[in-house]
Amino acid sequence: MQRSIIRTKIVSKQRQHKPISHTGTGVKLSERSKLPPFLALDVLQQAQALGQAGRDIIHLEIGQPSTAAPEPVNQALKQHLDDRSAHGYTVAFGETALRAAIAGHYDSWYGTRPPVDNIAVTVGSSTAFAVAFMAAFDAGDVIAIPRPGYPAYRNLMMGMGLTPRHISAGPEQGWKPMLEEMESWDRLPEGLMIASPSNPTGTVLDSAELQTICAWCDRNGVRLISDEIYHGLAFSKTCDTALNYNKDAIIINSFSKYFSMTGWRIGWMILPDQLIEASQKLIQNLFISAPTAIQRACVSAFECYDEFEAHKIRYQQNRDLLLSGLPRQMTDSAAPSDGAFYLYADISSLTDDSISFAKALLQDESVATTPGVDFDPIDGHKYLRLSFAGSPDHIEEAVRRINRFIGQQKSAVA
Amino acid sequence: MQRSIIRTKIVSKQRQHKPISHTGTGVKLSERSKLPPFLALDVLQQAQALGQAGRDIIHLEIGQPSTAAPEPVNQALKQHLDDRSAHGYTVAFGETALRAAIAGHYDSWYGTRPPVDNIAVTVGSSTAFAVAFMAAFDAGDVIAIPRPGYPAYRNLMMGMGLTPRHISAGPEQGWKPMLEEMESWDRLPEGLMIASPSNPTGTVLDSAELQTICAWCDRNGVRLISDEIYHGLAFSKTCDTALNYNKDAIIINSFSKYFSMTGWRIGWMILPDQLIEASQKLIQNLFISAPTAIQRACVSAFECYDEFEAHKIRYQQNRDLLLSGLPRQMTDSAAPSDGAFYLYADISSLTDDSISFAKALLQDESVATTPGVDFDPIDGHKYLRLSFAGSPDHIEEAVRRINRFIGQQKSAVA
Repeated sequence: MQRSIIRTKIVSKQRQHKPISHTGTGVKLSERSKLPPFLALDVLQQAQALGQAGRDIIHLEIGQPSTAAPEPVNQALKQHLDDRSAHGYTVAFGETALRAAIAGHYDSWYGTRPPVDNIAVTVGSSTAFAVAFMAAFDAGDVIAIPRPGYPAYRNLMMGMGLTPRHISAGPEQGWKPMLEEMESWDRLPEGLMIASPSNPTGTVLDSAELQTICAWCDRNGVRLISDEIYHGLAFSKTCDTALNYNKDAIIINSFSKYFSMTGWRIGWMILPDQLIEASQKLIQNLFISAPTAIQRACVSAFECYDEFEAHKIRYQQNRDLLLSGLPRQMTDSAAPSDGAFYLYADISSLTDDSISFAKALLQDESVATTPGVDFDPIDGHKYLRLSFAGSPDHIEEAVRRINRFIGQQKSAVA
Repeated sequence: MQRSIIRTKIVSKQRQHKPISHTGTGVKLSERSKLPPFLALDVLQQAQALGQAGRDIIHLEIGQPSTAAPEPVNQALKQHLDDRSAHGYTVAFGETALRAAIAGHYDSWYGTRPPVDNIAVTVGSSTAFAVAFMAAFDAGDVIAIPRPGYPAYRNLMMGMGLTPRHISAGPEQGWKPMLEEMESWDRLPEGLMIASPSNPTGTVLDSAELQTICAWCDRNGVRLISDEIYHGLAFSKTCDTALNYNKDAIIINSFSKYFSMTGWRIGWMILPDQLIEASQKLIQNLFISAPTAIQRACVSAFECYDEFEAHKIRYQQNRDLLLSGLPRQMTDSAAPSDGAFYLYADISSLTDDSISFAKALLQDESVATTPGVDFDPIDGHKYLRLSFAGSPDHIEEAVRRINRFIGQQKSAVA
């Protein structure tokens, strides 16, 4: 039955004539490709170029651990490479063994075990977002996203014809998204995106706050997407999952942060029953399946919690080095950094242009950071995101260089 | 400047009120997620389930080599795993060493060396298609696609709000897309997708035919996307690249077919200058970068041509086994199979329903194949795609089983 609908759509000749838009080269560039760049990655590219030219760059710009995957994962991958079947596709949702291991992880961390059928393995969390946006929303739908927040949310939404709309989650809101703001809109959004711990602020929602959000979405028929990629990285609070409180929520996570396997590009999503079939089809068409041998190796990550907890302690020490070493004008009104591995520092007393500030800091002191405008197009000029996922040595050196940079800026003004 | 446009878009309150569509669960499932399934992958899933239940399945349903990646690639990956930097992101377009190796491959195969800056490494060819569709086309744009053709093209286009429109490439057209057909339309399409060697037909366009298509696109301002994923797998003809004849074309390829590395999920695209910046941003948001250690290992694939050529000879032998062993009614009017590793067999004298035929063949004889409707919603009920990328033993056994199956069908009717 479905086939015949598709067929009609494709062969239909009832179309309006539309002239082809021309550019200099005779063929068009799409409007939707005119996305803002992801400045953190642009800074990475500039910093890498400077590094290749011999500069000693301190990398605080990119949200990735400096540590490698744990050795059991490496060993598992090496073993799987000798298995001929590791070189073919898997089913769309991924290897059953990995999905079972993910289900077990939820059981041990949150006391709930999602069915393996509802778990999809993806290429990082990025493709999970793409699948979620396509499965749950149509062109023109509005999705509320916290401001400040991760820029790929809104860029990907815009690339897919969705309308991201900000809800404030700045200092006046205690760095948490205010549900009341959506109720003042002319219409409720079709979706709400939350992230706890938050990138770039490090804010952690407690269990009661999460339950309030989940209940609000349930009451209002709003699809919740919970980005839980920084789970495991909370320094004094506990991370709870939206899976426990909203049956329609899409939960997204990955091996890139807590599990220290960024470059492996494996993430996962937990889907409500209603979205399973659609998501399977979308994955088949968007990336077919995640890399097979890597999927199998990721199973071993769940044996390495001790190593990850040691990383977390180091991140906390790094955070404390930044908070105690940087000028108080940057840290006193910074976001909480209770989780993730970012300090969203307030530079409003130093500049009104975080892009120029970040560029000068990279040029003058070889410290790469991310301007706040990546995360907040309105107030981001006042903020700078510093990742503290690196080594303590690097963080200490970064503190020295940033202090010197600010000192020189001041004396130049004076 | 761009920032302020984005900001206006996001915070604008000028929106029409639209009631939230409700489903049984209170939140909506998107219209665009109602894609047809990719039947080849559904058959894979059924066949795997039967296999796990103890059945001895012959897999002719899925387009992947049964061979592993070459040993130098495995060894390279094992070495890179010990390098800490292999666990982080790369820049969006991927590792320079791999892009340089790809450029060298074009030099040695086609006598042209694309600039490294124009080459992007992707997660399989699938995400390259997604990036190409988003970079070059807007919602509502029409892209001509050959019928029969690879189903993910049209599914992905529809998921992104584009309108795929078929051009006939069946037996009456010598299994090649007819440009004249587009000229009879009410409007020309914004884009044209071609694939040579073709999936599912194995048709190979010769250099003159490719040049004609490239010139037609150039003359008419139509963006050409050339899927060259089966390059290297032509049995008596030579594969030429559209890169040589159309400066605006997007060229897409991958390590999944000729290079026997399907499960590694690494592809690439060669982009015209005009699309470089947009594609970088789209990749940053869609998947950030391809798996780092695997990217590095793929460089070694370009040292292993001898092994790949041996695979090709086996595919050709497998094809000949099918053509000589299957009933002539299936092969005489089949598509050419001059390239790729598929026989698009004509089953119209045996059934008028390729889905039921494929299901019965899987149930009765444990041979998994793909119904033609995956590739052609109009005439696909007459065809069955058989992949001959497996081992000769399996192909011989498949021939025996298919002949027995058809014999039993006939005696059941008689």
